[in-house]
Amino acid sequence: MAGIIAPSILSADVTKLGEDVALVEQAGAKYLHVDLMDGSFVPSMAYGPAWVKQLRPQTDLFLDVHLMAVHPENHVEELAEAGADLIGVHVEATPHIHRVLQMIKAAGVKAEVVINPGTPVSAIVPVLSMVDQVLVMTVNPGFGGQAFLPEMVEKIKELSAYKAENGLDFDIEVDGGINDKTIVLTAAAGANVFVAGSYVYDKKDPAAKVQQLMDLTK
Amino acid sequence: MAGIIAPSILSADVTKLGEDVALVEQAGAKYLHVDLMDGSFVPSMAYGPAWVKQLRPQTDLFLDVHLMAVHPENHVEELAEAGADLIGVHVEATPHIHRVLQMIKAAGVKAEVVINPGTPVSAIVPVLSMVDQVLVMTVNPGFGGQAFLPEMVEKIKELSAYKAENGLDFDIEVDGGINDKTIVLTAAAGANVFVAGSYVYDKKDPAAKVQQLMDLTK
Amino acid sequence: MAGIIAPSILSADVTKLGEDVALVEQAGAKYLHVDLMDGSFVPSMAYGPAWVKQLRPQTDLFLDVHLMAVHPENHVEELAEAGADLIGVHVEATPHIHRVLQMIKAAGVKAEVVINPGTPVSAIVPVLSMVDQVLVMTVNPGFGGQAFLPEMVEKIKELSAYKAENGLDFDIEVDGGINDKTIVLTAAAGANVFVAGSYVYDKKDPAAKVQQLMDLTK
Amino acid sequence: MAGIIAPSILSADVTKLGEDVALVEQAGAKYLHVDLMDGSFVPSMAYGPAWVKQLRPQTDLFLDVHLMAVHPENHVEELAEAGADLIGVHVEATPHIHRVLQMIKAAGVKAEVVINPGTPVSAIVPVLSMVDQVLVMTVNPGFGGQAFLPEMVEKIKELSAYKAENGLDFDIEVDGGINDKTIVLTAAAGANVFVAGSYVYDKKDPAAKVQQLMDLTK
Amino acid sequence: MAGIIAPSILSADVTKLGEDVALVEQAGAKYLHVDLMDGSFVPSMAYGPAWVKQLRPQTDLFLDVHLMAVHPENHVEELAEAGADLIGVHVEATPHIHRVLQMIKAAGVKAEVVINPGTPVSAIVPVLSMVDQVLVMTVNPGFGGQAFLPEMVEKIKELSAYKAENGLDFDIEVDGGINDKTIVLTAAAGANVFVAGSYVYDKKDPAAKVQQLMDLTK
Amino acid sequence: MAGIIAPSILSADVTKLGEDVALVEQAGAKYLHVDLMDGSFVPSMAYGPAWVKQLRPQTDLFLDVHLMAVHPENHVEELAEAGADLIGVHVEATPHIHRVLQMIKAAGVKAEVVINPGTPVSAIVPVLSMVDQVLVMTVNPGFGGQAFLPEMVEKIKELSAYKAENGLDFDIEVDGGINDKTIVLTAAAGANVFVAGSYVYDKKDPAAKVQQLMDLTK
Repeated sequence: MAGIIAPSILSADVTKLGEDVALVEQAGAKYLHVDLMDGSFVPSMAYGPAWVKQLRPQTDLFLDVHLMAVHPENHVEELAEAGADLIGVHVEATPHIHRVLQMIKAAGVKAEVVINPGTPVSAIVPVLSMVDQVLVMTVNPGFGGQAFLPEMVEKIKELSAYKAENGLDFDIEVDGGINDKTIVLTAAAGANVFVAGSYVYDKKDPAAKVQQLMDLTK
Repeated sequence: MAGIIAPSILSADVTKLGEDVALVEQAGAKYLHVDLMDGSFVPSMAYGPAWVKQLRPQTDLFLDVHLMAVHPENHVEELAEAGADLIGVHVEATPHIHRVLQMIKAAGVKAEVVINPGTPVSAIVPVLSMVDQVLVMTVNPGFGGQAFLPEMVEKIKELSAYKAENGLDFDIEVDGGINDKTIVLTAAAGANVFVAGSYVYDKKDPAAKVQQLMDLTK
Repeated sequence: MAGIIAPSILSADVTKLGEDVALVEQAGAKYLHVDLMDGSFVPSMAYGPAWVKQLRPQTDLFLDVHLMAVHPENHVEELAEAGADLIGVHVEATPHIHRVLQMIKAAGVKAEVVINPGTPVSAIVPVLSMVDQVLVMTVNPGFGGQAFLPEMVEKIKELSAYKAENGLDFDIEVDGGINDKTIVLTAAAGANVFVAGSYVYDKKDPAAKVQQLMDLTK
Repeated sequence: MAGIIAPSILSADVTKLGEDVALVEQAGAKYLHVDLMDGSFVPSMAYGPAWVKQLRPQTDLFLDVHLMAVHPENHVEELAEAGADLIGVHVEATPHIHRVLQMIKAAGVKAEVVINPGTPVSAIVPVLSMVDQVLVMTVNPGFGGQAFLPEMVEKIKELSAYKAENGLDFDIEVDGGINDKTIVLTAAAGANVFVAGSYVYDKKDPAAKVQQLMDLTK
Repeated sequence: MAGIIAPSILSADVTKLGEDVALVEQAGAKYLHVDLMDGSFVPSMAYGPAWVKQLRPQTDLFLDVHLMAVHPENHVEELAEAGADLIGVHVEATPHIHRVLQMIKAAGVKAEVVINPGTPVSAIVPVLSMVDQVLVMTVNPGFGGQAFLPEMVEKIKELSAYKAENGLDFDIEVDGGINDKTIVLTAAAGANVFVAGSYVYDKKDPAAKVQQLMDLTK
Repeated sequence: MAGIIAPSILSADVTKLGEDVALVEQAGAKYLHVDLMDGSFVPSMAYGPAWVKQLRPQTDLFLDVHLMAVHPENHVEELAEAGADLIGVHVEATPHIHRVLQMIKAAGVKAEVVINPGTPVSAIVPVLSMVDQVLVMTVNPGFGGQAFLPEMVEKIKELSAYKAENGLDFDIEVDGGINDKTIVLTAAAGANVFVAGSYVYDKKDPAAKVQQLMDLTK
């Protein structure tokens, strides 16, 4: 089964976002990855619930929101009302990860737990049975121009094995440095949702790139 | 002399921002007000330095950046490099307001101090001789749908009087609930830069609204 | 006109609070001062919205809630629903004092701004026209056994003069070390609501003490 | 051996706490669970060291204090002096969990480490040899009306197995949604101290409920 | 009367501090300025109570400690026991400036309030009657190589006038960019304690520089 | 092979540090352990990058910097430029441990991850392949006079076993209560870098003590 490609708006042109989003939707992408960054949990600041709200009526893409913020619980309700399909929360951003995931599900939205490159799989074991998706960061979040960290492949394998052994069925998403090489590595390790940023949007033909990435995961 | 109208991108359509910005530029606006909100200093999250960077080559508008963030010093360098013409910093957001304003000026950017509705003019007196602009918030920042606070007119008058008495020449900007009524009140009190949000962008004819507001400040 | 005595539950017996509250109500007190302390804004931890909620049906006393907490905005809604008649917020506890007071009023509750001994009256001038009451701390909050600070009398006079000059009509409350001597001093300076703690509750006859304090303010 | 029932004062009537505490003591409870909540680590604010101090001379119950606060080290000394028999600290609340537990023991009080539902047993392994009790939260703390999380039973089993394998002898406490059904499940998994809140205090006959719960753990 | 010169150990050689301190003591300096920086309130980290403790038995200089730290109350007791003669606390570093100054005095140490360049004199008026010294920063603290801010002279004059009008007798200290020119300007404005850093320690003959500065304030 | 002795400047005489450092260098020590403490992550404040910078030209010792600070990323660049040979960062001090270690390596400095006594080895597994050294704290950091925690020996063994099984080659450093007894225990468990504080500096003959410790690890 082909993996799901989730182009990241972080690499799109912010002055004509609707157009850039339509481009990848027409190309066959199923998800749109929306990065919310608060300048505290991560160094950069970017996007917010308003983008979810305004994109919602313009697209059928699954809005896959990656919340990089301190006090993530403060943003759940607004994001749910704005139309997010999934909200991802960093385990490192809250001492109450189970509660925040509970809030997301109670709001009728799919729930994702996210782990930074330095965080072990063991840190999220207690919530794996409750999540719809796990995001394994393959770069450190909140920076531009980071290279894919090959040692994360091992972590994806560990997570994938845990999932199989325990009969769980969450999706495994990867984010950071995904291109035609790394998508193959991470898919082989068990990932099935792939955030693609500059590889798609920095090219002359984003549609072709989306198609190429989908083909590589078949 | 006509006042300066600074349409706020907070009220623009985030899916076609370039277009919405071009609209107000063609209508005669001279400034573009860019609201950066971090979800910590204010409840909402919105925009970041990437917007300044991508809008810069597309417009000649003066990019009037209003930074609503904790640790504002962390964002100065990136904003300056992105092409901000002015950076406004809240006195309530840092114990080192003089230092942050110094950093902004050292980066070759105009410096603005911002005060919340509950903050007195006396709190910013030590920096008034070093700033290019003072922003008097006429609503509480970081929320939508707030009504203009009429008691702020008195604060603008006080600031304006201080400026005259001390021979200073900073601009006085107002932000929040500015429309055809409140622009007249605040202009009379001494304001000369007017942030206009929904009054401009929620209407059928933003260009006409920009022109109307300019006319009202003559 | 007699001043209002507001016995503080901080000095009551926490194991039989309903009884201690009834005692001062029968003695003629009109207000009950409820101190909420979070262990962060002030060193001690004590009380919370549950006390307001459970005392509400048992008493007709005006529930005068003094919120000593970081992020005071997080507690406004719960306190309003619990039945608080007034919520007091420290100007030192938030960069958005106007917004928090606005929230309190929007919730249908009387709003009070509170100043620590080291905070000048000038810091709260922008919100004086919107508040129902100002609390001038006459000790540093969140500690036990503090002595009345006589230099606060001057501050009460300054606030009282400002009120008269500007035709405002908020109440002036004092809290800390109020007894038969200091109530006279602060009443003369302009205070009209008096928080009384150990002077009332540490005595054999709280009712008599409440009566005595009322008489002293006539 | 019958388990220990620890009625929580969070569900008692705060206006007549002494009476409510006496009720459960007479009914045969051995522990009293005292929840201290700071409004920062958890959303609610409630109780503080004063309750421990004033309850101490009125009861022989073992005062089992559950500290839900940031900077827990700031409250240890005061709680020890107030007469706490045990102090429980969340591993998620401090980067120095070993140090805080060391401080508690140095103060002559029993030490407990607490884990939120989202926290794995592996996070507390290094301190298991030094604690007297481990509290496994079976709801997310600091909220009302939460339902027992059945997936926590597995965690209790894991902890219980670790304890047996390593020859350790701490007690295992559970807190959240404990009633006549869940007490059986958690006791079977290895818990032996049971915090009971609304199941005991919301009923007409708290004494009978305490007795029933004790019987169910035999 | 000659002003007091307070050489700052921030400019001394940290590998032979005892020697550098002895040098300025022999040269006639009366105070030693000890800068404690925590890397949070100010960007740099430097020194701590251990330096006060180890210098104390080696010198008769008045140890004038300038605490640049968040939560200044946490360091008062240790500094007092270490032998500080005066502790200066930033009004911007705590919502409880009166309380911290009270703690310092209760510990038997002289108390100083410090204001950053962006902070007005009005912010410290309520504590002026309780302090032994006020430090007016003439650069932004916690950085190296900052130039004297000439606009601070006006602030010193304002403070000096307030002191005279109210019959107070605290010392006025200045810190930042003090040399043979700026010492004259600030002394004329009312300062009488002068922190000298690189002007003294970067020269070949620190003793001569101390003497020169003392002469310039006569 | 003899272990590496790293005398800690925390136990040296701060008034003649250059001399104390020379003493241990002549005695054969290869590392100098430099403790930076910020008063927030740990209770004490001590040292900063200036000491690294000023010691650098005076010694050939490997400068082994142990950063005990919140927001460790803020200090990496300055420490690297000052001449640190290694920078150690606490996993408990940042949600982005991988990123901070990456920054250290990118600055051309050796990278170390540090774990507090309460932190399990499992928390750092994802970064073990990227570090040059792991510091296992054998006391709680940032205090004086702490006794060696014997239960840490087990943790060193676990780390050592992981290292062998995975073919990694980082050094294992221990810090806290190291003396002639504990150095033998920790060396046997797999440690090869030993921070020695008061055992070396409180004695009459530091050189002899350094030699003795080296001999004990052969």
